Amino acid sequence: MRVRYAETDAMGVVHHSQYVIWFEVGRSSFMRNAGVSYAEIERGGRQFRIAEVGARYHAPACYDQVITVRTWLGALHSRGLTFSYAIVRPDAVGGGEQVLVTGFTKLICTDRAGQVQRLPAELRQVLQALTEAPAALAG
Amino acid sequence: MRVRYAETDAMGVVHHSQYVIWFEVGRSSFMRNAGVSYAEIERGGRQFRIAEVGARYHAPACYDQVITVRTWLGALHSRGLTFSYAIVRPDAVGGGEQVLVTGFTKLICTDRAGQVQRLPAELRQVLQALTEAPAALAG
Amino acid sequence: MRVRYAETDAMGVVHHSQYVIWFEVGRSSFMRNAGVSYAEIERGGRQFRIAEVGARYHAPACYDQVITVRTWLGALHSRGLTFSYAIVRPDAVGGGEQVLVTGFTKLICTDRAGQVQRLPAELRQVLQALTEAPAALAG
Amino acid sequence: MRVRYAETDAMGVVHHSQYVIWFEVGRSSFMRNAGVSYAEIERGGRQFRIAEVGARYHAPACYDQVITVRTWLGALHSRGLTFSYAIVRPDAVGGGEQVLVTGFTKLICTDRAGQVQRLPAELRQVLQALTEAPAALAG
Repeated sequence: MRVRYAETDAMGVVHHSQYVIWFEVGRSSFMRNAGVSYAEIERGGRQFRIAEVGARYHAPACYDQVITVRTWLGALHSRGLTFSYAIVRPDAVGGGEQVLVTGFTKLICTDRAGQVQRLPAELRQVLQALTEAPAALAG
Repeated sequence: MRVRYAETDAMGVVHHSQYVIWFEVGRSSFMRNAGVSYAEIERGGRQFRIAEVGARYHAPACYDQVITVRTWLGALHSRGLTFSYAIVRPDAVGGGEQVLVTGFTKLICTDRAGQVQRLPAELRQVLQALTEAPAALAG
Repeated sequence: MRVRYAETDAMGVVHHSQYVIWFEVGRSSFMRNAGVSYAEIERGGRQFRIAEVGARYHAPACYDQVITVRTWLGALHSRGLTFSYAIVRPDAVGGGEQVLVTGFTKLICTDRAGQVQRLPAELRQVLQALTEAPAALAG
Repeated sequence: MRVRYAETDAMGVVHHSQYVIWFEVGRSSFMRNAGVSYAEIERGGRQFRIAEVGARYHAPACYDQVITVRTWLGALHSRGLTFSYAIVRPDAVGGGEQVLVTGFTKLICTDRAGQVQRLPAELRQVLQALTEAPAALAG
């Protein structure tokens, strides 16, 4: 994933709200890799409402840099789940990988009316198997 | 309306895609002033699909500046309408008003399935009276 | 502050990353009310780097709703400060005020090269007086 | 390039301002393929200021769809250039490619102070060779 010009701000770096969007890209990618389509879940009448987001900023990303979002399933509950993320520059100067931002998102399963619901059983099963999986990569 | 930090880019000025969002703010404000609620129209099963957008950039806006969107109804057709805009700095250095960006949006009326429809009669009537109105201000 | 159409997502509500941008609007407004211009601070060679952001989502905001950002200075340190926020709907159904999202931002003072610096003394003094002030409103 | 959830709006489709950002992604990609780095040009003291943008919307993109930006160099002048775009769904239902949005961007070369300048000679030469090239793909 390359940093877009529109994602930068007047400080010359990526605006801090943008990483929250990249967390979402990582999460979508994690779900897709697990064979779970979020568009499908929505058509089935369930939504994941965001309950909490947290991000720690270690170093900024700049225009045109290549970044990767590592995503893993941190916790799985009956009505929700938590994803954790590390946004990294795989090709940072010096050869190693550089961690830019870490964070998490807590999601709660609801129906269309916004009422909290248990995760669909099949989804829960699929996700259970992934709580010990290594991080999925997006970017 | 004050320019938000998140709306700037690495060039230190507002990203050019942002003005298209401000056009929309101007349009919403124009409609609201005319007693028309877009949320209401959507609940009534009609949508305005964007058919075309154009923008000319004369001067950039910067963080924390106060800007105003002048909006007027440029054309009204049976199935669509065109809004025109001028985004200005009312308090530009020198005392006068400075035009930053001008543009237009062509909208087409559709139903929820995306089929083109005539504008609802009452809406058309309300808007007809506004085609000769001076520009509405938002910001 | 009215919710813009561009700030909503396919779930019909405001995208969760948007509240982080509104936190920033609240923060800018708090600083401006305190007589502090962030644009000014930047010209003076100091920047506030975002170190951490957290948000809890209680209820969603929708298109065209009027929302207010309450901002207060939660903590003031020699090299940084923390703002806290509550994004509310002042005119929620039922007459009372509804809290939509609460959150905080930790900022660290740096120079242009990104090195951590002490807050400028005058700024620190101005802000000290505000740590016990009631929340500033934006929107 | 996959459509991100954050790029959709309450109509369930991608917000129309987003395509302008994708035009930019296409343009960056075109330049990179041509061996031209925009970050490099900026470091050399030249900027491309956006003078005009136009977009026609034929069909909407939705969350999670794969889209491609075709970009070509429409015109090359001594002080500016025009890019043209077609944003397409390569895997539309029915097997064929579906054109979603077409558009263009006029750019003007300036120095850091915003004064219009001639395109750097080497850049002009590189670009000249590309005016007859087929469209570059991004996404």
